[in-house]
Amino acid sequence: MESILNYDTVTLDDANSALVIIDQTLLPGEIKMLHLTKQQEIWEAIQVLRVRGAPAIGVAAAIGIYLAAKEIQADTYETFYQQFRAASDYLNSARPTAVNLSWALKRMEKVVLENKARSVAEIQSKLRCECETIWAEDIDVCRRLGENGLTLVKPGDGLLTHCNAGHLATVRYGTATAPIYLGHEKGYHFRVFCDETRPLLQGARLTSFELSSTGIDTTLICDNMAASVMKKGLVQAVFVGCDRVAANGDAANKIGTLGVAVLAKRYGIPFYVVAPSSTIDMETATGDEIVIEERDGEEICEMWYKKRMAPEGVKTWNPSFDVTDHDLITAIVTEWGIAHAPYKESLRDIFRKKEEA
Amino acid sequence: MESILNYDTVTLDDANSALVIIDQTLLPGEIKMLHLTKQQEIWEAIQVLRVRGAPAIGVAAAIGIYLAAKEIQADTYETFYQQFRAASDYLNSARPTAVNLSWALKRMEKVVLENKARSVAEIQSKLRCECETIWAEDIDVCRRLGENGLTLVKPGDGLLTHCNAGHLATVRYGTATAPIYLGHEKGYHFRVFCDETRPLLQGARLTSFELSSTGIDTTLICDNMAASVMKKGLVQAVFVGCDRVAANGDAANKIGTLGVAVLAKRYGIPFYVVAPSSTIDMETATGDEIVIEERDGEEICEMWYKKRMAPEGVKTWNPSFDVTDHDLITAIVTEWGIAHAPYKESLRDIFRKKEEA
Repeated sequence: MESILNYDTVTLDDANSALVIIDQTLLPGEIKMLHLTKQQEIWEAIQVLRVRGAPAIGVAAAIGIYLAAKEIQADTYETFYQQFRAASDYLNSARPTAVNLSWALKRMEKVVLENKARSVAEIQSKLRCECETIWAEDIDVCRRLGENGLTLVKPGDGLLTHCNAGHLATVRYGTATAPIYLGHEKGYHFRVFCDETRPLLQGARLTSFELSSTGIDTTLICDNMAASVMKKGLVQAVFVGCDRVAANGDAANKIGTLGVAVLAKRYGIPFYVVAPSSTIDMETATGDEIVIEERDGEEICEMWYKKRMAPEGVKTWNPSFDVTDHDLITAIVTEWGIAHAPYKESLRDIFRKKEEA
Repeated sequence: MESILNYDTVTLDDANSALVIIDQTLLPGEIKMLHLTKQQEIWEAIQVLRVRGAPAIGVAAAIGIYLAAKEIQADTYETFYQQFRAASDYLNSARPTAVNLSWALKRMEKVVLENKARSVAEIQSKLRCECETIWAEDIDVCRRLGENGLTLVKPGDGLLTHCNAGHLATVRYGTATAPIYLGHEKGYHFRVFCDETRPLLQGARLTSFELSSTGIDTTLICDNMAASVMKKGLVQAVFVGCDRVAANGDAANKIGTLGVAVLAKRYGIPFYVVAPSSTIDMETATGDEIVIEERDGEEICEMWYKKRMAPEGVKTWNPSFDVTDHDLITAIVTEWGIAHAPYKESLRDIFRKKEEA
């Protein structure tokens, strides 16, 4: 098997004309790179999760809005800005919960707003630089998350992860997986358990694929087997990603994360949320304020290939995310250091460090 | 939708010539009754899980061996017994680890052994009575489990269940579902959450089907959503079945039950194991002595219709059952009453009551 680390998950092609992504809907069967140039294609890729994972979505949106801006034919700044905003709103509508999507689009917009005096061509050029910076920063952040996270574990540890906060969720290395890849490079010989992560099976399709492709000892389990793995003493630490961290440390992540955290507490296993500082939202006081996306119930009634697995008309509840209460989180690993409870203070310190840098 | 309660899961037909079962491999798509007369058909039905659930398998085996015995042409007891044993060994080989299968066959054999002096026709008649008794006892036990369990909840409660310890696992009513059906008949208006129960999805295919067919407010969730349902305050009690209860109250049940119990503890929700006394094994001191069946890992790598969902060659761990520690169990509901901790004493009391009856 070829290591997935040979391919960046999201990138701008050399001609600056296409967003290049790994089509994640085809994994683990096939590694296929898509070259997307049209805005509808990019919107659809985000919407149907061909590109997914908060950081990767952010980078894809930045590259996507650059490609849109590049095509705008406008004589005045006002006309350019109006069309830029329309394109930005369109991309932003692809996934409502993804904070990185709007974060990246706003960051790109800031470049436009700060360069009012320049020509459209100059603004377009600055937008290309900005999306390339966002891309490079993502790689840098993941590398530093890996270095910080690796200080929390030791060679031979059993690790458990949920969903995919992996290479395939970022440009490269991943967030929750960054300590695992870095440790693997240093010969740590981890044993990693991957929750399959119903309903969309990102753990089975993506995480167990990407980790085993690099030669890491990887074991796939169903979500409901995590308790047994922990009870057997096979897990020394849990690493999960997150979609948003509130100021008090409550962390929203893929549905099922909360349950893993409760189990880890029962078995005395440290539970680490690996969070780029961009996912920490100091404006959100607690997890109660985070709106959880609820997806179509058919998603949990039909198996792939359309064999029905639940009766017609049964009620369903299909939330995409849940919020892990801060008292269940041992530490929040960021690229600027590791935050412990009380998070209100420690997360503020992280931001202070970031601003001083 | 027609209520599944209109059909017994397992029964002997009026002409005493066929084992009648609901073909569970076709659920939830179609309710199809099978009339099985040949021993190979009955063996196959048990083997491929057309009939499943410990109590239902026991009743099917009892009816199955009666039908075999009825066909034996023998002049002497010895010839009859020899052929009876051959038929019994054959049925027993359909699912070698199913305790209720061998339990029912041994109970039928006892009838043969205790009636050596009688004619073959008389023994055959006594075997018919015994399989009808086993059938009726199963209904009676489930009804009493329902009555005892119903004392633990109140109208309007939200209930959560895992896997299928339902009507489809017994002749009628089920074990964990018996309080739900009984309450429903009394107008309790429960809201029931069904874990889908990976990997074989018995909760989605069977439990959500049978409960909603009777008009009960039923919501299907993925296993990893149970924590969120509990956190939202929607669950007032958990009812699960069990495959075996040890003398200290540790309960082995479908994989994932342990995790549900840990979650229930976190959220202060009572966790009830509904256990016919036949599943309580006072010879097993603790759950550590219970050997857990580990099934083929392909089961969690392939979706139905054979679309692969995990990479080729990935390691898997696929245990069928787990053990829920007794400290996580609020009470064990039996047909002879409700046992609370310390279970070593309370389960002994249950057996004392049973023996005195």
